[in-house]
Amino acid sequence: MQDTPITAVGIDFGGTSVKLGVCRGEELLHTDEPILTAAHPGPTALINEMAARVAKLRQAYPDIKAVGVGVPGLVDYDRGFVHELTNVPGWKHIPLKALLSEKTGLHCAVENDANAMCYAEWRYGAGRGLRNVIALTLGTGVGGGLVLDGKMFRGSSFSAGEIGQMSIDSDGKAGHYGNLGALEKYIGNNQIAEHAMARYAEAGIIKSLEDCTPKAISIAAHNGDDVARQIWGEIADWLGTALSSIAWLLNPDAFVIGGGVALAGPLLFEPLGRKVQSMLSTVVWEKLQILPARFSNEAGIIGNAALAADEV
Amino acid sequence: MQDTPITAVGIDFGGTSVKLGVCRGEELLHTDEPILTAAHPGPTALINEMAARVAKLRQAYPDIKAVGVGVPGLVDYDRGFVHELTNVPGWKHIPLKALLSEKTGLHCAVENDANAMCYAEWRYGAGRGLRNVIALTLGTGVGGGLVLDGKMFRGSSFSAGEIGQMSIDSDGKAGHYGNLGALEKYIGNNQIAEHAMARYAEAGIIKSLEDCTPKAISIAAHNGDDVARQIWGEIADWLGTALSSIAWLLNPDAFVIGGGVALAGPLLFEPLGRKVQSMLSTVVWEKLQILPARFSNEAGIIGNAALAADEV
Repeated sequence: MQDTPITAVGIDFGGTSVKLGVCRGEELLHTDEPILTAAHPGPTALINEMAARVAKLRQAYPDIKAVGVGVPGLVDYDRGFVHELTNVPGWKHIPLKALLSEKTGLHCAVENDANAMCYAEWRYGAGRGLRNVIALTLGTGVGGGLVLDGKMFRGSSFSAGEIGQMSIDSDGKAGHYGNLGALEKYIGNNQIAEHAMARYAEAGIIKSLEDCTPKAISIAAHNGDDVARQIWGEIADWLGTALSSIAWLLNPDAFVIGGGVALAGPLLFEPLGRKVQSMLSTVVWEKLQILPARFSNEAGIIGNAALAADEV
Repeated sequence: MQDTPITAVGIDFGGTSVKLGVCRGEELLHTDEPILTAAHPGPTALINEMAARVAKLRQAYPDIKAVGVGVPGLVDYDRGFVHELTNVPGWKHIPLKALLSEKTGLHCAVENDANAMCYAEWRYGAGRGLRNVIALTLGTGVGGGLVLDGKMFRGSSFSAGEIGQMSIDSDGKAGHYGNLGALEKYIGNNQIAEHAMARYAEAGIIKSLEDCTPKAISIAAHNGDDVARQIWGEIADWLGTALSSIAWLLNPDAFVIGGGVALAGPLLFEPLGRKVQSMLSTVVWEKLQILPARFSNEAGIIGNAALAADEV
């Protein structure tokens, strides 16, 4: 890592759009107009468009030295090889780092999006300066990334950090892989909505799924709705069970929690802290912080730019 | 780490006895008569006895260059400071590394016993040559240690690896810290015996606790007892739930499993492999091995000697 910040392009590649920005250290200097993923079907067209954008950004920022791309799927980080992006047609076995390096002439890095978010929070966000940081994004799914002993930890086949697949109940609901008790099946956006609808029904209140989104039950809880508060308590219990297991295993300095569900703020973080504390020894708890993420939509751009810049 | 193996003393400090041996690399050259812990009450007497033994061993092995001690409790590895040994009276806040270095004039290392076992298996045992290894000891309790990216991972306050405290059921049995669903409360020696007794009772068979030890139900299962086989299947489900969660989080190369309960061999390992596979994606499972430990009683001596030797 450099002492004087390197200027780099960060690219956050999603199923719908590709977001681009220019960063110098933690500073997001510029955000580009997003590229619509569907407008460039197939890897070649999209990679060409990314390279064209990078070339244009270099005219405005001639000190750009690196490009980092985060993708929604499995990446071999060392080779910058994209195994498969389930939600983006045609993206299978793509040597993205090699192709993009060739087209841009710059150092490139390619990372999984959850890892990039974790790196952003560790390098410049809520987990800055800490040695062991576990980052989570709570949304449709539950993603995660790990910085251990001050380095991104990727596991033996670059698949570490799948916190949403961890089990909180050996007899529980089956996850995407048939994995019983998968956390994601309890606290994913849609599962929260379904659970809330059922809880309201038990209380004799009929609500539609749309009225039971995490955002809607946040507002309801703020307005003093007891059922809504109870639901946040249950979400905190489920998430807290997983976090305490991770804490027993890894004894980290911090959990950094972002994503839409985390926007509930103290409604989630207060019962979550109580739950995690109730599950840990003093030694493990004393060292632990549970922090809201600093970055939101820009986490991908900042994290990917930082990953690439830190390799220059 | 050295290419030519260093000769070192390994000390395995238990509540009942202190085992000592001399190792050169993976070779256990000599095992000394154990010291009875209770015969030397208080840290000073026991440390003096350890130092006297080391001095004597150096007469027979003049190339001894280091001493590694493993203790049953929380250790600050960097300082070699023993916080507390719950089962050994008087052992609280002891700068063991400093005291033993002073008395022996040798390089010393002090480690938690589960970490030392993990190090032995990674350095010279079942996990040799692998990058990410999770070791477990299944006995009265469930201990664990982690080697991540080729290095012992200890966590932010040296408490990582407490696999027995991880939750397999958010509504489950309370562990030692009030932590619901603690794995140890399902597959600890005594819990296995209690569970087996209950299962036999359900089948109309009255057995005593002594007839329900892991060893006894291993023998029964080998002899074709269906209840006993079913019990091993349940143990595999509980343990497999925890292992799959760890695999999703860390994507390791291997689990290495030792301790008394692991002596059941294929009775445990076969259903365990099936359970873990059923809970994982192909990518995570393909990389993963579930291995019986190579070392048994000598793991502590070998691991502690290796930890100290590798620092010389």
